[in-house]
Amino acid sequence: MEPSGQPLADVARLRDDALRLLSEQGASLADLASAGLSLPGPLDLERGLVIRPPNLPGWDEVPVRDALAHDLGCPVRIENDANAGALAEWRFGAGRGLASIVYLTMSTGVGGGLVLDGRIYRGIECAAGEVGHMPVEWDGEVCACGQRGCLEAYVGGAAWAKRLQREAPDESLAVEQAGGRDRVRPEHVVDAARRGDAFARAEIDRYIHYLSRGIVSIAFTLAPEAVILGTIPVAMGEALCFAPLREQVRALVWSQVGARMQILPAALGEDLPYLAGLSVALDSSQSLTEEQ
Amino acid sequence: MEPSGQPLADVARLRDDALRLLSEQGASLADLASAGLSLPGPLDLERGLVIRPPNLPGWDEVPVRDALAHDLGCPVRIENDANAGALAEWRFGAGRGLASIVYLTMSTGVGGGLVLDGRIYRGIECAAGEVGHMPVEWDGEVCACGQRGCLEAYVGGAAWAKRLQREAPDESLAVEQAGGRDRVRPEHVVDAARRGDAFARAEIDRYIHYLSRGIVSIAFTLAPEAVILGTIPVAMGEALCFAPLREQVRALVWSQVGARMQILPAALGEDLPYLAGLSVALDSSQSLTEEQ
Repeated sequence: MEPSGQPLADVARLRDDALRLLSEQGASLADLASAGLSLPGPLDLERGLVIRPPNLPGWDEVPVRDALAHDLGCPVRIENDANAGALAEWRFGAGRGLASIVYLTMSTGVGGGLVLDGRIYRGIECAAGEVGHMPVEWDGEVCACGQRGCLEAYVGGAAWAKRLQREAPDESLAVEQAGGRDRVRPEHVVDAARRGDAFARAEIDRYIHYLSRGIVSIAFTLAPEAVILGTIPVAMGEALCFAPLREQVRALVWSQVGARMQILPAALGEDLPYLAGLSVALDSSQSLTEEQ
Repeated sequence: MEPSGQPLADVARLRDDALRLLSEQGASLADLASAGLSLPGPLDLERGLVIRPPNLPGWDEVPVRDALAHDLGCPVRIENDANAGALAEWRFGAGRGLASIVYLTMSTGVGGGLVLDGRIYRGIECAAGEVGHMPVEWDGEVCACGQRGCLEAYVGGAAWAKRLQREAPDESLAVEQAGGRDRVRPEHVVDAARRGDAFARAEIDRYIHYLSRGIVSIAFTLAPEAVILGTIPVAMGEALCFAPLREQVRALVWSQVGARMQILPAALGEDLPYLAGLSVALDSSQSLTEEQ
């Protein structure tokens, strides 16, 4: 759902969305045991608030959980979108059947969620899994977060697009594809790399190089059964991204971990938002509205 | 207990140790509900084996759990020493009352254990928490583990001693204190730094610099309530280690995490081995021998 700038109108639309989804299934509000919402953070889980997400203009400590619980007549759980995505990939997607996964959603920015031994792990201020801001270059590029050398400053879509629009040579197929250097975006580079473009290939190598550094720190800290990557890596695919990435990570971690830790594309694609909400509704690590 | 090179004799001595501890408390084997052992890894927790720890010569897949359970007549749990130390600091030490801590034992090498939301988290091959091998310098010093740039290669006692014996200038108080450059060890540098020695001060700065890098990656991955540091940092103390370390870490992490994530000296000291064993005995995340 696109936000309108009016939080209360947005919450009413969430209710309408829920009613539509129910009727598509031949069900009604009376059939609803609980509901789950995947929202951009930061959230206050205890009070059920959305604080002030940069991409939800007008939202400022909106009590979305209790407002929606009132409208739907059932308990509601909320979760930030990276954690909700992690739960969804763990329950329904690439991480099905595994005890512990690290999920990275890699589009404009790089978010992350941790499911460890079958439970979401949030850390203080729900800041665990912010692996997009682990340093991958000391005193490196300035990140949107203000720190230097963050993974996101190298493999986040926004940061990468900025670099591409600065660095792409006119003769690159990526520029041709984009219709001008100032329009080049990651998808053009992926396409140009598939067609053998030298600049695009070098950019992809750089992407894999920094991403592998981030995954190495994850491996030594968490040794999860799988690291699951969504969005840009999924668009890149096996040959451009996952095959070389696995090779580089394995060279930089201990063999017993490298042999067992899988690096997988996210599996849910367009169904992710719905399955993320469903996973939050089913997540027993968080108590339900009525119990709070 | 010092290992004898004879695993079965060592296990018999563990039994004797347990009997002595019991009698010191006016108790006997009949009073024992369960026992816990903190052991150098790698371990096979499912089969209760000690595999082949580098510092337990002669031990090769020793079934210490079941042998000791037989001798003591009660269920026994085993755990690697870093995890057991983490459990002990969480239950009895600096991490008491917190939900999530990362414990680093920083002596010859750098081991780590994670207690997350009140449970030990092990990861695949019990390799979670191996934060001593997170990269803190790309293409940096070669570590004992074979990788490059690991935290342990900069702040591990063995690696540091090697460097000190190579780099210490003859005029340093650390060399005088040690009775020769080839005998300089971290404790001499700590002492010399307290007395204002320039080389020693620079070495401590370097130690803090690299340790803060490691803790930054922990902060962005796990956002624990506390990072608890044992051994060398404890010997360094507040002024030489913890105060400057906290300042450097705070400059490199987000303010909301930096403000809440504590960096603390381990609290248990000489009691650690006993409290580690006790914590393992009490750790309900692992099932007891008899249930397996």
